[in-house]
Amino acid sequence: MSNDGDETKRRDWRRVPARVVVIGAGFAGLAAVKGLRKARAGVTVIDRKNHHLFQPLLYQVATAALNPADIAAPIRRIVRGRRNVEVLLADVVGIDPARKLVTLADGEVEYDHLVLAAGATHSYFGHPEWEEFAPGLKSIEDALAIRRRMLLAFEIAERERDEEARREWLTFVVVGGGPTGVELAGTLRDVARMTLARDFTHIDPATARVVLVEGAPRILTAYEPESSESARRQLEARGVEVRTDQRVTRIDAGGVMIGDERIPARTVLWAAGVAASPLGRMLGVPLDRAGRVVVEPDLTVPGHPEIHVVGDLARVEQDGGIVPGVAPAATQMGRHAARNILRAMDWEPSLPFRYVDKGSMATIGRGAAVAQIGPWRLSGFLAWAMWLFVHIFFLIGFRNRLLVMIQWAWSYFSYDRGARLITGRAEGPLTGGLTDERLPATHEPESTRC
Amino acid sequence: MSNDGDETKRRDWRRVPARVVVIGAGFAGLAAVKGLRKARAGVTVIDRKNHHLFQPLLYQVATAALNPADIAAPIRRIVRGRRNVEVLLADVVGIDPARKLVTLADGEVEYDHLVLAAGATHSYFGHPEWEEFAPGLKSIEDALAIRRRMLLAFEIAERERDEEARREWLTFVVVGGGPTGVELAGTLRDVARMTLARDFTHIDPATARVVLVEGAPRILTAYEPESSESARRQLEARGVEVRTDQRVTRIDAGGVMIGDERIPARTVLWAAGVAASPLGRMLGVPLDRAGRVVVEPDLTVPGHPEIHVVGDLARVEQDGGIVPGVAPAATQMGRHAARNILRAMDWEPSLPFRYVDKGSMATIGRGAAVAQIGPWRLSGFLAWAMWLFVHIFFLIGFRNRLLVMIQWAWSYFSYDRGARLITGRAEGPLTGGLTDERLPATHEPESTRC
Repeated sequence: MSNDGDETKRRDWRRVPARVVVIGAGFAGLAAVKGLRKARAGVTVIDRKNHHLFQPLLYQVATAALNPADIAAPIRRIVRGRRNVEVLLADVVGIDPARKLVTLADGEVEYDHLVLAAGATHSYFGHPEWEEFAPGLKSIEDALAIRRRMLLAFEIAERERDEEARREWLTFVVVGGGPTGVELAGTLRDVARMTLARDFTHIDPATARVVLVEGAPRILTAYEPESSESARRQLEARGVEVRTDQRVTRIDAGGVMIGDERIPARTVLWAAGVAASPLGRMLGVPLDRAGRVVVEPDLTVPGHPEIHVVGDLARVEQDGGIVPGVAPAATQMGRHAARNILRAMDWEPSLPFRYVDKGSMATIGRGAAVAQIGPWRLSGFLAWAMWLFVHIFFLIGFRNRLLVMIQWAWSYFSYDRGARLITGRAEGPLTGGLTDERLPATHEPESTRC
Repeated sequence: MSNDGDETKRRDWRRVPARVVVIGAGFAGLAAVKGLRKARAGVTVIDRKNHHLFQPLLYQVATAALNPADIAAPIRRIVRGRRNVEVLLADVVGIDPARKLVTLADGEVEYDHLVLAAGATHSYFGHPEWEEFAPGLKSIEDALAIRRRMLLAFEIAERERDEEARREWLTFVVVGGGPTGVELAGTLRDVARMTLARDFTHIDPATARVVLVEGAPRILTAYEPESSESARRQLEARGVEVRTDQRVTRIDAGGVMIGDERIPARTVLWAAGVAASPLGRMLGVPLDRAGRVVVEPDLTVPGHPEIHVVGDLARVEQDGGIVPGVAPAATQMGRHAARNILRAMDWEPSLPFRYVDKGSMATIGRGAAVAQIGPWRLSGFLAWAMWLFVHIFFLIGFRNRLLVMIQWAWSYFSYDRGARLITGRAEGPLTGGLTDERLPATHEPESTRC
């Protein structure tokens, strides 16, 4: 992906007629950029981060198995060699369909064709105050914050002398029974009973209580009932307390309320609500409850054939259902938008989009997963092995694949996790850095060298 | 290191007579813990971080070559299996030699023998206000902050239309010509002319200006003059502007002042001053200018044979000079303190410490370094190859060695760097996260899944 024909190389984006602007470098945005490889147009990619994130593996960073850099690649490196592609690290603050103008926090960009792939964020069901106590998992920063909370909880429990308080530090509640919630809950138990098992003096990490709360009657609602059931069994087999049909009514520093029942817990993770990016509102077209743009069959916006909305931000109906917010769907939409833009440049009519479901899979933990591929329903080790293969295969960059494979192999055989670091200048005295001290100075060479 | 004889395993630290407290899990502290493996004593390791940091490679995290987890290992994992060792993640706020008591932010620990290995931090020569503009490099947080500033500078330059302002964003000043300063300056040029060379549309990263400022007449003052000279030549060969005998008189957001000369620069890195940990002051014994504890020949404190000060915090004179603040010296001191503690338990007199200099080496960049081993003076590729070998060899943990080797090999052949991520919720609009948005909620399964 990081290179293409000389024919493209010799083309300079500044000297081409049309300008395509792609907002968001997730799966959908990158697929669109890739699809425009041979376009006689300048392509401008705008993202507020400098890296593309392989979100399906984000929970592995949150649970200390992988490093951020293993699942993220700089956007510039991904599109390197594309002379007609420009990358802007910028915040989009406005879109003006009438003037075909994208407004940045510090500038403007005109477009002839716009691909809006701004994705989604978490939603706290109108309880923004919950975010402080129950971090969600969307960005690398989120993942590191969750990793820090999880590891600190065990450290504090180790120091805690009061039995009841210690139990609260060793209780983890995951809100939301979708794939991310299932992965977090299952992996948390694995970390507690395997990775940390032998590392503490005063506590037995294996006694950590993990509760998974889902409002719907079953977890993994997007899957077939038998897959949900299998996921539940696999979670319970590793000691996760699965609670379905139960809604969280309150979250605070001390735990969660489910109806009238209180679960004292010092660590609560949020994997429940998803809401589309606010950029959708700027188009002035109808949105659905989740803030997603209701697009035409060809993924364009009503009245604006030059504006394509793709990925999690697009609401696409198909066969009576809604195309799910998954990476393959986002990739297919991005590719389709690119194809229609190329057709538009050749004065050809656009084609309607059709999502091809290649199946879905979710991990539960070490050697445990569920998968649905066409008519097949897999679970357990086989599904897990397939999950590993698929994720390694789609991971961006050979280097990342190699490093991730080694770390997974290492974790599998050693039960160890490589990224067990508590970092960040946040919360509490435990994390203060010496760097704030002021001391008489000296002129020694930098210390602690080899 | 993560395991030892059953004889030790069956011993429980809570049932042993003596208690040894080790403050700090750096090279010195860990060496002491290792040396006490067979001690008939309970060993309590106290550190404010949960990980041991391989500081000599920290600059590689700052320059996006390595991941934090590659050069850091959880202290608990390192001492795993030692039944007589307890690890406390805690802040030491006081030491009472009279009562043999260590006070924590949230508790107390008594000791029979104390090993103080709290290390050093950076010092801004009485200009604390400089820290904001010129971050130092001591912790993983520091390294990530520097990485973020360095990568952001190129991104902002790419967006900047004003030529002069763009020059300022492409100018990097490194203050301090010790090993860290030399490594940072040399690597910065490598990143600019190799890693980023082809990735930008409006700027040529290779034109980035890197200035290394040293107050002494030569860089690498701890090395022989000929090594300093060779280092200077190798730095200048890769385009670094080396300025010796020049002192920085002012640092602000817009650059640095050297005497009356102003160097406009948006990125200034601090590698100049080192000052010992403030914990040394709590012993009530004489300190030197740098705040280091002046110890007896056996590394104990005057009047307190049960208190051992080791590593960067100890001022040890030998052959008219001072034992340098380098990892090998710290390791030797820690090991020696452990030996003397074992002797004290057997009512044997303590032995004086003697530092054995096995040589020193500093990298300058890709294929460039200087090394002094005994009578030999190496430089260039050979010194660099040796540097690689030594650092890989001493890196903690087989897994880390393997991952670091692969990433170095990858970087060497691809000129690429794996950790080119701009992360962290800091400075400016460029880094805002969607997670602050408040939006109508929905109950979709977690989005963007495979």
